[in-house]
Amino acid sequence: MSASTESAVSWIAVDWGTTHMRAWAMGAEDRVLERAESADGMGRLEATQFEAALLAVADDWLAPGRTTDVLVCGMAGARTGWVESGYETLPCRPQSKRNTVTAPVSDPRLRARILYGLKQVAPADVMRGEETQIAGLLTRNPSFEGIVCLPGTHTKWVSVEAGSVAKFTTVMTGELYSLLVRQSILRQSVDEAAWNEAAFAEACDRAFTAPSRLTADLFSIRAEQLLSALDPATANARVSGYLLGAELAATRDLWSGRDVAIVGAARLAGLYGRALGCHGVAPDTHDAEDLTLSGLIAAHRATEQGEPS
Amino acid sequence: MSASTESAVSWIAVDWGTTHMRAWAMGAEDRVLERAESADGMGRLEATQFEAALLAVADDWLAPGRTTDVLVCGMAGARTGWVESGYETLPCRPQSKRNTVTAPVSDPRLRARILYGLKQVAPADVMRGEETQIAGLLTRNPSFEGIVCLPGTHTKWVSVEAGSVAKFTTVMTGELYSLLVRQSILRQSVDEAAWNEAAFAEACDRAFTAPSRLTADLFSIRAEQLLSALDPATANARVSGYLLGAELAATRDLWSGRDVAIVGAARLAGLYGRALGCHGVAPDTHDAEDLTLSGLIAAHRATEQGEPS
Repeated sequence: MSASTESAVSWIAVDWGTTHMRAWAMGAEDRVLERAESADGMGRLEATQFEAALLAVADDWLAPGRTTDVLVCGMAGARTGWVESGYETLPCRPQSKRNTVTAPVSDPRLRARILYGLKQVAPADVMRGEETQIAGLLTRNPSFEGIVCLPGTHTKWVSVEAGSVAKFTTVMTGELYSLLVRQSILRQSVDEAAWNEAAFAEACDRAFTAPSRLTADLFSIRAEQLLSALDPATANARVSGYLLGAELAATRDLWSGRDVAIVGAARLAGLYGRALGCHGVAPDTHDAEDLTLSGLIAAHRATEQGEPS
Repeated sequence: MSASTESAVSWIAVDWGTTHMRAWAMGAEDRVLERAESADGMGRLEATQFEAALLAVADDWLAPGRTTDVLVCGMAGARTGWVESGYETLPCRPQSKRNTVTAPVSDPRLRARILYGLKQVAPADVMRGEETQIAGLLTRNPSFEGIVCLPGTHTKWVSVEAGSVAKFTTVMTGELYSLLVRQSILRQSVDEAAWNEAAFAEACDRAFTAPSRLTADLFSIRAEQLLSALDPATANARVSGYLLGAELAATRDLWSGRDVAIVGAARLAGLYGRALGCHGVAPDTHDAEDLTLSGLIAAHRATEQGEPS
């Protein structure tokens, strides 16, 4: 990167999740000058290793003798992350938050702050990172009312009302899917890379109708493979369909009759979109990374405005 | 063991599961002369290693120049076991089966056979080992009618009618519990060795009433630990209670209004008994090992009678 670009970096936006981190060098008027990412997610770092992991991707963006602001969202603010940041309590506006915690750094070129997550007291629930995506969605579409579904390891279903997050539910579908197809007895029956769309739709419908059968239906996949050589693509689609159908049953009160926005990577967003489509819901889908950056920019503006210094 | 005892071993009974194997030296009139066990379960053995694993516990029971029958039930007959045995098809009597597969051995003192499992065509389901426990139960109580619940990694709920297995359902509760408390995000919140009985009962009831909420309620355990320091004993009891409540909802059509016999180790049998007790069911409990041995003896008598040679 040229010296002229270096001097133009006004701040750094960071999305620091459990498995990955992404950083953007931001220039004047919040234009993206450069993007970088690494696999140094929160999950593999000790608290003392975050600064080095950040410098590994962002060192070139820093100028000697000058302090650059770094604004971080996501799991870097978890108890087992860089430093624990707090939670805003529902109901609240995700895009107006100004609360951050300062992360410890030794490099004088850095001033790093981590955004708060959101918490719901009852039923107990927490998020870190998704609130920034919701802020990004509301930045682009301030009048959005409805449910934001953010599929992932721990999928969030978030009710947005009058610009605020009113309530949300986290479902462990993604993590259960990974555990089942990689570590349970089903690993012998499933090919994670193969797919059968008809089997997915059928399984999704079955689990939505009879969610209590979930753990019995899952074992039946193994039995059918033993007894009649169920193909691994169908088995994979059924694991996914059973879990997603049960998730839709669990969250029905949230999404039924509401506008739904799905924020996620293309494949997963498509899966949720097709599952919801079976129930007459036609969700909009949004790219998670785009919204994260929009949310970080909105938070940066809010925190700058909020600070007299 | 003395030479006189050796000569008195008329056959060997073996219960070979995924994680353990147990063997009994059987004397005249099916008296147990000696019992042995090892951690060489099917899960850690290649097909070629079973004979040595058997000899490691039973070598002393064999006499030179004489062939001793070994009758095996359980997962040693799985596709990934010693040699694959078949399945009897439902409905059928568990105690009259005479079908076995001969396992390959090189030691001339051994003749090893593995009992068939049971299969249900639709919904697809299989068992290996539990059918022998049911046979043991029916040997002791030939008039038993009702549901046999065999809790474990993959819990079986088996409907016994007129001495036959009519239908059954396998639920993955035990395996899911292990994956969740050892490998999921919940591992940071749960102490597997600690317990809160009131929390168990409450969680069991909640999941029975609203089984679709299972995967959301599970995540809430983690959130409550983060937000209000939920104690690890309560967290553990809730994981167990949510899974067991959902299992009772899934199998309600089987056990509701029927006599229930629980066959399992004391702690797990107690857990299922207390959960069922909340729904007005007062199950009898039976020791799994006792019934396995009774079932192996019954099967041995049946196979001996069935063979002209």
